[in-house]
Amino acid sequence: MNDRLGPGPHPISLAVRRDCRAGELAGPTADLAPGYIQGNLAILPERLAAQFESFCRLNPKPCPIVGVSRVGDPFIPELGFDLDVRTDLPRYRVWRNGELVDEPTDILDYWRKDLVAFVIGCSFSFEEALIADGLRIRHIEQRCNVPMYRTNIDCAVAGPFAGPMVVTMRPFKAMDAIRAIQITSRFPAVHGAPIHFGDPSRIGIKTLDQPDFGDPVRIEDGEVPVFWACGVTPQAVILASRPEFAITHAPGAMLVTDRRNTELAIL
Amino acid sequence: MNDRLGPGPHPISLAVRRDCRAGELAGPTADLAPGYIQGNLAILPERLAAQFESFCRLNPKPCPIVGVSRVGDPFIPELGFDLDVRTDLPRYRVWRNGELVDEPTDILDYWRKDLVAFVIGCSFSFEEALIADGLRIRHIEQRCNVPMYRTNIDCAVAGPFAGPMVVTMRPFKAMDAIRAIQITSRFPAVHGAPIHFGDPSRIGIKTLDQPDFGDPVRIEDGEVPVFWACGVTPQAVILASRPEFAITHAPGAMLVTDRRNTELAIL
Repeated sequence: MNDRLGPGPHPISLAVRRDCRAGELAGPTADLAPGYIQGNLAILPERLAAQFESFCRLNPKPCPIVGVSRVGDPFIPELGFDLDVRTDLPRYRVWRNGELVDEPTDILDYWRKDLVAFVIGCSFSFEEALIADGLRIRHIEQRCNVPMYRTNIDCAVAGPFAGPMVVTMRPFKAMDAIRAIQITSRFPAVHGAPIHFGDPSRIGIKTLDQPDFGDPVRIEDGEVPVFWACGVTPQAVILASRPEFAITHAPGAMLVTDRRNTELAIL
Repeated sequence: MNDRLGPGPHPISLAVRRDCRAGELAGPTADLAPGYIQGNLAILPERLAAQFESFCRLNPKPCPIVGVSRVGDPFIPELGFDLDVRTDLPRYRVWRNGELVDEPTDILDYWRKDLVAFVIGCSFSFEEALIADGLRIRHIEQRCNVPMYRTNIDCAVAGPFAGPMVVTMRPFKAMDAIRAIQITSRFPAVHGAPIHFGDPSRIGIKTLDQPDFGDPVRIEDGEVPVFWACGVTPQAVILASRPEFAITHAPGAMLVTDRRNTELAIL
């Protein structure tokens, strides 16, 4: 077993993947296996993989890679024991030429010898640290999805991969926003510090009421919207490039790994 | 020589103190001895010193103590070679019952066997780190004093020492403000992270155009005011308590120590 996985077995995170594999979990993973890194999944043909990896490297805030498979190999041992990306997520989306063609609960029938799986960090990891510090996260309080917005900030281009940065928004009072900036700065591997706060129009967002993805949330008196780079960015960029073939996780149905969120903190 | 002073002599900072002692420097110290910690000075009778030290301990953001003398001893060896608080600052203010009675260039004639000198951290230390990161500081660009404001945030009380927190304000664009929060968080010993940004009325500031101390600065399009706890707070609190006797540095005429700003950074 890989020593990056830390001491001992990880029965909690493994149980989530086993439930997925058995077809007993097909929905969101948000509250499952607290403490363990969850990741966005993006699977591409080898032909596009190198350029996509370049894209992620050039845009580390929205696209922090936490793991990559070998070509054609659906197992990523450095992320988890017996972790098989074909079966161990609750639900997938299969895309052909940028069009959604299927939403299966496994991709055994879609797997190919030329595919490469990328696992990209997710804000769940830093939200756990925010909550541990006593900060209140509005979309969690409202039991809805985090609001996400396309910005006018262009990502750096790599081959066919180009497009605007997508951001998540969480409202905070200024003093809590300062604390949230400090805390998320400790997590450069999962989006890190915010990229903006305050006036949404400064980053090309017309209205906060109509997010491009997710749900709108209430902004209370004295709060300012705070914006973080979002792992939906690489997915949006992949689909905009209309690749011949791609597979992603279904929204909210993430890959639960055996690695711990605390491992991502730099101090 | 004290090993906290780091290796070797410190001719640059010592030269500033020697100029003060010789009466050749009686003005601001802002650009002198870059890299070395400068401090606010507050001298009180022993009778009040313990309560003042408690006040600083209870209010570490506005009142970060970097050094304290022994009772009646004007030398603070842990802050600098042959450092004599009676002569080594450019100019002083002498107060009786809260009234300014003198602004001498040394306090040899005012020194008493019952006095205790406190040296309190100053934002010069973190401004150096902000500038090193490429951030532009408006009051430095405008060659004026930083604007300071009384807030509606009450300090914790210790004996006769009570009053509102005083803050400095520096305007930044949101992305630079995020960077400034990260950088100043590294300097908890010199005010640390901001205590607020955005709407000044949230901390009881009516207008930014009329600071309580220092000079107003320009706020440009897209900038937000960012507020840090200020070392003027302890001085304002001392004077409001109308102590029988007190001595402070004259505004801008700080104590230059042999210790380095980088030493205050936590990482």
